[in-house]
Amino acid sequence: MRVPVLYGQDDGKGFQNEIRYISGRFQWDLKQDWDGQAEIDFPDTPEEIRKELLGFLTPEEIDFSLEARFLHSLGKSSPEILMAKHGKLSRIVDAVIYPKEERVQALLSDLLKHDYRAIIYGGGTSVSGSLLPFGKGKIVSIDTKNLRKFDARENFAIVGSGLRGVEAERAVNKLGLTFGNFPESFLHSTVGGWVSTKATGQESNYYGGIENMLLGVKMETSQGTLHDDLVPRESAGLQPKDMALGGDGKNGLITEVALKTFPGPVNRYFQSRIYNSFYDGIMALSRMRVFPAVARLSDEMETEFALMGAGDSASIRFFRKYISLRGYSKGALLIIVNNNHVVLPEHKYSMSAGSRPAKSWYKGRYARPGLANILWKSGLVPDTLETSATWGNIWKLYTETRKAFYDFKNGQGFQGEIMAHISHLYRQGACIYFTFILKGDDELELLQETRDRLIRTFMANGGSVTHHHGKGKFFSQYMDPLLLRQQASYEDPLLGGDR
Amino acid sequence: MRVPVLYGQDDGKGFQNEIRYISGRFQWDLKQDWDGQAEIDFPDTPEEIRKELLGFLTPEEIDFSLEARFLHSLGKSSPEILMAKHGKLSRIVDAVIYPKEERVQALLSDLLKHDYRAIIYGGGTSVSGSLLPFGKGKIVSIDTKNLRKFDARENFAIVGSGLRGVEAERAVNKLGLTFGNFPESFLHSTVGGWVSTKATGQESNYYGGIENMLLGVKMETSQGTLHDDLVPRESAGLQPKDMALGGDGKNGLITEVALKTFPGPVNRYFQSRIYNSFYDGIMALSRMRVFPAVARLSDEMETEFALMGAGDSASIRFFRKYISLRGYSKGALLIIVNNNHVVLPEHKYSMSAGSRPAKSWYKGRYARPGLANILWKSGLVPDTLETSATWGNIWKLYTETRKAFYDFKNGQGFQGEIMAHISHLYRQGACIYFTFILKGDDELELLQETRDRLIRTFMANGGSVTHHHGKGKFFSQYMDPLLLRQQASYEDPLLGGDR
Repeated sequence: MRVPVLYGQDDGKGFQNEIRYISGRFQWDLKQDWDGQAEIDFPDTPEEIRKELLGFLTPEEIDFSLEARFLHSLGKSSPEILMAKHGKLSRIVDAVIYPKEERVQALLSDLLKHDYRAIIYGGGTSVSGSLLPFGKGKIVSIDTKNLRKFDARENFAIVGSGLRGVEAERAVNKLGLTFGNFPESFLHSTVGGWVSTKATGQESNYYGGIENMLLGVKMETSQGTLHDDLVPRESAGLQPKDMALGGDGKNGLITEVALKTFPGPVNRYFQSRIYNSFYDGIMALSRMRVFPAVARLSDEMETEFALMGAGDSASIRFFRKYISLRGYSKGALLIIVNNNHVVLPEHKYSMSAGSRPAKSWYKGRYARPGLANILWKSGLVPDTLETSATWGNIWKLYTETRKAFYDFKNGQGFQGEIMAHISHLYRQGACIYFTFILKGDDELELLQETRDRLIRTFMANGGSVTHHHGKGKFFSQYMDPLLLRQQASYEDPLLGGDR
Repeated sequence: MRVPVLYGQDDGKGFQNEIRYISGRFQWDLKQDWDGQAEIDFPDTPEEIRKELLGFLTPEEIDFSLEARFLHSLGKSSPEILMAKHGKLSRIVDAVIYPKEERVQALLSDLLKHDYRAIIYGGGTSVSGSLLPFGKGKIVSIDTKNLRKFDARENFAIVGSGLRGVEAERAVNKLGLTFGNFPESFLHSTVGGWVSTKATGQESNYYGGIENMLLGVKMETSQGTLHDDLVPRESAGLQPKDMALGGDGKNGLITEVALKTFPGPVNRYFQSRIYNSFYDGIMALSRMRVFPAVARLSDEMETEFALMGAGDSASIRFFRKYISLRGYSKGALLIIVNNNHVVLPEHKYSMSAGSRPAKSWYKGRYARPGLANILWKSGLVPDTLETSATWGNIWKLYTETRKAFYDFKNGQGFQGEIMAHISHLYRQGACIYFTFILKGDDELELLQETRDRLIRTFMANGGSVTHHHGKGKFFSQYMDPLLLRQQASYEDPLLGGDR
């Protein structure tokens, strides 16, 4: 049986120009050589496990189908896609459970009583390996899709953890409000997933990260229910929401999330500038005291991709001509989206690029995975890694990361390129988001080795192991063992523990 | 031997008018009947403990004196002051240790090896009972006063946990910057104490609470060193700073704190208004989208205290006359301090009271404990409790809390009054800060019973057990046992555990 494993339904048809440009730019001959599906072949759920689970679950609550079990056993990271493509997934979950809220507490204690482990599944957009089942024991996936409450209060709302971002935002927009959280995964990720990955959205400079939006959670554990007092602030030590944030769902199953609401709709102002260099753009951003809602600064290569991949219409050709006449054809593009108030970085060493690049980024803000999908199908391996660092460390981190990538590439003799952009701003530093593309033999091993070298380079240069994708199995291995022990002492016996 | 136990050195001489007014208003005959000192009589540290400690500590690092041991064994809350006054402290610590940073790690493992428990002591301004030693075992106090690093970076600074607020702020002011944290304890509390109590300052509406200012901590535990990556953000689950915040120093000894810095000095604008009622003032504040740095709304009784206690000069008399002619003599005073930008609540049902009340509050912002001190010496028991609640709950919480207080007073037949002000604002709700005064027999039991009734009333009406004083022993007892178990699973074997 073949099952699609790429992100979303976007087949990348909207990115023909980019593909044509990329294959020309690097002389990569890109022909469709993969349909984006994986051949899956796993044993059926053993009869005794079916019987046991149906002892405390109704048939409507549970799915034993191969496709459901497989799709609930991995996320959307590039290593996971390659594991699926090459049949390297060690196992899948034994069943998928879809509980209603009133059933969750009993379900968790029943599962624990029968020696199960459980992995919580939201929108399935995890890129940290947090959904991969490991080990020999009985493992089920608990899908939160039936947890759909929506209850608006004074400047906050209580939202079921299973609501997708786009559903929750639509519900609050009807009240003239917004939650302000717009991750690239917005169309698929759930509100509960935002919390358990400690997500941050594209407009975090204006609205903050999920930790700033979160008033509290209700969390079911195999030991009982935990919930925050719904108050604006407390100082009584670690609270349930603190455990839930970035906890990968190992501390409890989040059923409800109380999120602040903000007045909406906002007036948006679009601008773009091209800086003489990525370095000049970084300097300009580092000197700001307040930031635009979105300020996305691409390095020279990502800028070239954006400008050259934008197609070949007369207006685009004129735009490129104009830029090169001004001497900025090797520059770094900054796209700016302001909400309500207009704030701009200093304009030294830069030229205006009008509003169009910002508007077109905004229009396609959730469609980027489509480009990745068509690269995948063309036999390439696209991937991203993000980190954050203080302004004092970020330039060295950027140059050392590029060097690590190209040193490895040249040593191994595979094809590949790496580029980056600054995606989230703080007065102390920024998130820098790397995109890289590989083409070579043993692509899974090649990718894993490349990721390991990049992450170690981040850490050696003052960067965090991750900025907003959660730790999961892929990033935990880089963390301080003492800190991991401390974190583990919080994990739930059913939901936590190494898999 | 007699030792002073009140807060700071302020003898309250600056509050003669208030005292005169209070004694008249309630026919309380206030004569100095206590010198604010406690008679202390505890056994010397046993010889074998002295020997054992001097086995791994130098004489300069340790103090066995009765006075030091006593003063490190309690905080400044009213129950603790009464315990000291009436000789009800069950025990004191065996010694006080003053380590330098490079010695802390070895010290903690040595102490654990010899079966000690340790309590971390910062500025000694705790009001949560977190400094009280309990139980029979060997207990030492570790005073952080020698941890005095100061190292400024890009829009943040690394500060030794033992620096007092006023010292840290002076150091950063020299660079034209501010930390923005101004708790009432500012002159005495330490930066490490700000973190371990999850403090928030008087200007939190503008700068946020310590959780918003904190970039990371370095924390020594008996198991090793924990430190945050110094990055603007990460999403790798619970970090050392998350454990340190509100942890009462039970998860580790914080040696360094990385705090964001803000541009300073700020332009301050002072205003005051009198609302027709406390209720009208609360409604006006609840409708604001952004807040002044300080917006302190007193209820009718606290307003009467402020206006009538302000003395009897011609200008004050004229001011009071003017207010009553405008029909606001039973109103609620709102004092406003704006930083840089002026934002004001709607003016419906209110009159301007000029800038003077706000300026005089600002001038005496750290001196309020002086008033408490002179009340103490006059034979009264002053106390405060603070909570936070959403706008939808706060009015009922306020009225029910007053009712609980006066019902108990009338049932028991003691003297007492309670008043409140809104002290910190959030778009979802506010912190409400209650001040009450008791006069009666068995004053310790009376106070403890009163506090218990007020805290239970907070919780029954959607309030948090505490907003910014930390949980300590006094508030933990009201928390969810499952949450406490989860919190305890983080505690350090030397620093944590029930005392």
